[in-house]
Amino acid sequence: MDQLGRLKQLLSEISDLHAIAELLQWDQQTMLPSGAAPGRAEQLETLERTIHRRSQSAALGRLLDKIPENTGSPEDQALLRRARRDFRKHAAIPVALAGKIAATSARATAAWLQARETDDFRILAPHLEKLFSLKREYAGCFPEAETPYDALLDLYEEGMTTRELDPLFAELRREQTALVRAWSNSAAPLPALPPGSFPATRQRALSRRVAIALGYDTAHGRLDEVEHPFTITIGSGDVRITTAIKPGQPLSALFSTIHECGHALYEQGINPAFDRTPLADGASLGFHESQSRFYENQLARSKPFWEYFYPALQRSFPAVRSLALEDFMRIINNVEPSLIRTEADEATYNLHILLRYELERGILDQTVRVADLPELWREKMREYLGVIPETDRDGVLQDIHWPGGDFGYFPTYALGNLIAGELREKMLRELPDVEAAIRNGDFQLLREYLRREIHRFGAQFTPRELHLRLFGTEKISAQPYLRYLRGKFSHAS
Amino acid sequence: MDQLGRLKQLLSEISDLHAIAELLQWDQQTMLPSGAAPGRAEQLETLERTIHRRSQSAALGRLLDKIPENTGSPEDQALLRRARRDFRKHAAIPVALAGKIAATSARATAAWLQARETDDFRILAPHLEKLFSLKREYAGCFPEAETPYDALLDLYEEGMTTRELDPLFAELRREQTALVRAWSNSAAPLPALPPGSFPATRQRALSRRVAIALGYDTAHGRLDEVEHPFTITIGSGDVRITTAIKPGQPLSALFSTIHECGHALYEQGINPAFDRTPLADGASLGFHESQSRFYENQLARSKPFWEYFYPALQRSFPAVRSLALEDFMRIINNVEPSLIRTEADEATYNLHILLRYELERGILDQTVRVADLPELWREKMREYLGVIPETDRDGVLQDIHWPGGDFGYFPTYALGNLIAGELREKMLRELPDVEAAIRNGDFQLLREYLRREIHRFGAQFTPRELHLRLFGTEKISAQPYLRYLRGKFSHAS
Repeated sequence: MDQLGRLKQLLSEISDLHAIAELLQWDQQTMLPSGAAPGRAEQLETLERTIHRRSQSAALGRLLDKIPENTGSPEDQALLRRARRDFRKHAAIPVALAGKIAATSARATAAWLQARETDDFRILAPHLEKLFSLKREYAGCFPEAETPYDALLDLYEEGMTTRELDPLFAELRREQTALVRAWSNSAAPLPALPPGSFPATRQRALSRRVAIALGYDTAHGRLDEVEHPFTITIGSGDVRITTAIKPGQPLSALFSTIHECGHALYEQGINPAFDRTPLADGASLGFHESQSRFYENQLARSKPFWEYFYPALQRSFPAVRSLALEDFMRIINNVEPSLIRTEADEATYNLHILLRYELERGILDQTVRVADLPELWREKMREYLGVIPETDRDGVLQDIHWPGGDFGYFPTYALGNLIAGELREKMLRELPDVEAAIRNGDFQLLREYLRREIHRFGAQFTPRELHLRLFGTEKISAQPYLRYLRGKFSHAS
Repeated sequence: MDQLGRLKQLLSEISDLHAIAELLQWDQQTMLPSGAAPGRAEQLETLERTIHRRSQSAALGRLLDKIPENTGSPEDQALLRRARRDFRKHAAIPVALAGKIAATSARATAAWLQARETDDFRILAPHLEKLFSLKREYAGCFPEAETPYDALLDLYEEGMTTRELDPLFAELRREQTALVRAWSNSAAPLPALPPGSFPATRQRALSRRVAIALGYDTAHGRLDEVEHPFTITIGSGDVRITTAIKPGQPLSALFSTIHECGHALYEQGINPAFDRTPLADGASLGFHESQSRFYENQLARSKPFWEYFYPALQRSFPAVRSLALEDFMRIINNVEPSLIRTEADEATYNLHILLRYELERGILDQTVRVADLPELWREKMREYLGVIPETDRDGVLQDIHWPGGDFGYFPTYALGNLIAGELREKMLRELPDVEAAIRNGDFQLLREYLRREIHRFGAQFTPRELHLRLFGTEKISAQPYLRYLRGKFSHAS
């Protein structure tokens, strides 16, 4: 076997181990018996140490040194680039630290579930303390990063920096708070979803039906229920999505399924030649989120989508049979500051992200203390959205990301919105028939477009390269998304 | 850390990786999307190679060489003994071979599911061919074994040999075929389970209720449905059982749940100090099966058990409300040669094992060809049980063991029956009140007895040592089980 072949062999085993780690995570969220959490934390630690050791092995390092830059096809060169990056990232981190982070975040996740049950942040706080401190240590392994936050951000959004984010987010803060203030003061009375029964079995069936219509391949995935929905790829051919049936929020399961479908279609659309390589991944979390947010909002809160699906919804839920489509559209596009990020409307969502971004930066810089998070959360909610959570469950305890050790992850949601905005303008230019197709229940035109433009490339391009390829510039712009918001919601003011 | 501490550290990581492999297996049987089977095979191969490499690592070998025999507590010495055995077993096998066996059996299992669907043995045959050949290669790594079969048997039942099995099985063949011939010719007309509805939801609820009553800890386990029930331990504190709801066999799910409970109670009863060590295991598969068979048959087909549970069964299934307990007891203890091993009654079960033992020995010795298995299966069924399967689904394709690469495993079921017979005589002597307790729904007395005598020791003793400790001799005897059969069923003749 030649050197490139040997490299691919090593990488395929590392990919398999990553896939296995994803299965452990999936199982922990969906299936794990309550008493088994401590054992699972140990398994995750051992597996993470194994992966980490392999990912920085001397054999891998030597191979990467020996193979010239311009070996093989463009895909091979991309693979080499990505493999070198992954190697550098792993080589910088001691195995013991990687293991400790895996175990601590598994324990913090279990503590978070408990903390939510009793609405007691103090149960989570010491775990979060430890995790933030480990992540600071982690960030310290990358002295080339300008701040600890930059070191973490780069894991999720390669090449992105706080220096670039800060002005972008300042723009969002300024424009979106103004827009939201204007729109949520609108005097137009909002119709409500009629009271009635929205049985879980029907929510489940409808979610499944819509997922399949959008092109989600259930022979290579499955749909389960969890408290906090996510998509996970357990290696080639196994992309699992989840949803949550929430009492009193009969459309939540459907929209969250569509959101996760956006992620899953990305994963299922990656060039199969990339299976078991580090290129079998999205370009970045921002790009990933651009797909899920696109599906959830630009598609599934649009008129053409519901012109096709509204009859099916009405058949599922007799309560909405007498509700006009126009009124339904107003309900699902209502702009109203609210407490929960994942349920937030398109106009307010980014403000939830800004709040988290500022808090987690503060903790990493040690200008904010973990113990103060609940209070700071309330303050910022009041400042940005004018609403204040009564419980920490609806406040600082709402997201799984911090207990999962994912600091620096939240900005990618906002970036995803912005990229989705850019993508929308491009797509409407290049695919003038797409709305008509959607109105007829043809989702293939959209899916094939996204597959052609984005999905199939997996991680072949860096996010900057992909952005350049798509939009002619490396830099993400907030303006298309803000134009989209104004175009969609300005009637409300 | 001292040497023993370092050894325990290495072993705990290997235990974690084994637990992870079990999760992959569990997921494959319960959750895996159909199209994800090829990826799963690759993951299993990679993980198996990783485990195998660790289990024969030079560092582990050096430590085991350095630590003196009589180091530490009796438990530590048992751990050393077991660790040395595991090391020797792994060191004998090349990593590549171990990986190939894992991947090939994952692929064979997927092919087996397909073969069953279309009742076409030819879909499975080439995989089985390859697997038997790999296992012969595997057996060849243990030249000290008298036959290839002995090398495999020793993996499941340490110290057992064909030389010891052959006369034992000859005794069973002679005595059980005679008994079965006598009893199944009995003229007494057998009552049938009344027709009626046995809804799956009620079978599920009753199975769960009985499992919990027997002491299965659901905070450290879960109950799922599969086509072929099994118990699996995914590390400390996570012992999962499965059952199958079978149309037309309304009691099958319940009995299979109780069988798996027998396994699970063993696993859940092991000394927690053995967590993440190779001692967190049964003494052997024979001992393991002695527990499951004991629960399924000696307990759950006994009068005292149903004196307690029959009212609950009648509440669950109105169809049996007018069926007298006496008649119900005769139905669930009917002796009748049948096609499916897992559904076979106590008097015929071992004959199903003999058939498999003879065929798999033949293939390993190369006196039997894989292609001839379906026909040989039919011949032996006719010879031992007087019934012939019309399909391979009900014949050679019925068990998961061969596709799973578990050759040499089947004898442990028969050994389990025999040990359960020995255990029964001992228990009735030592626990005269046990039947009265069971009649009152107290299953703790039984469970605590088994825990004290067997479960808590895990793999601290070899099966021979444990047998000696329990019964005063190392050798398993068939006579107690045959006495039990005669005592229970002779009224039938």
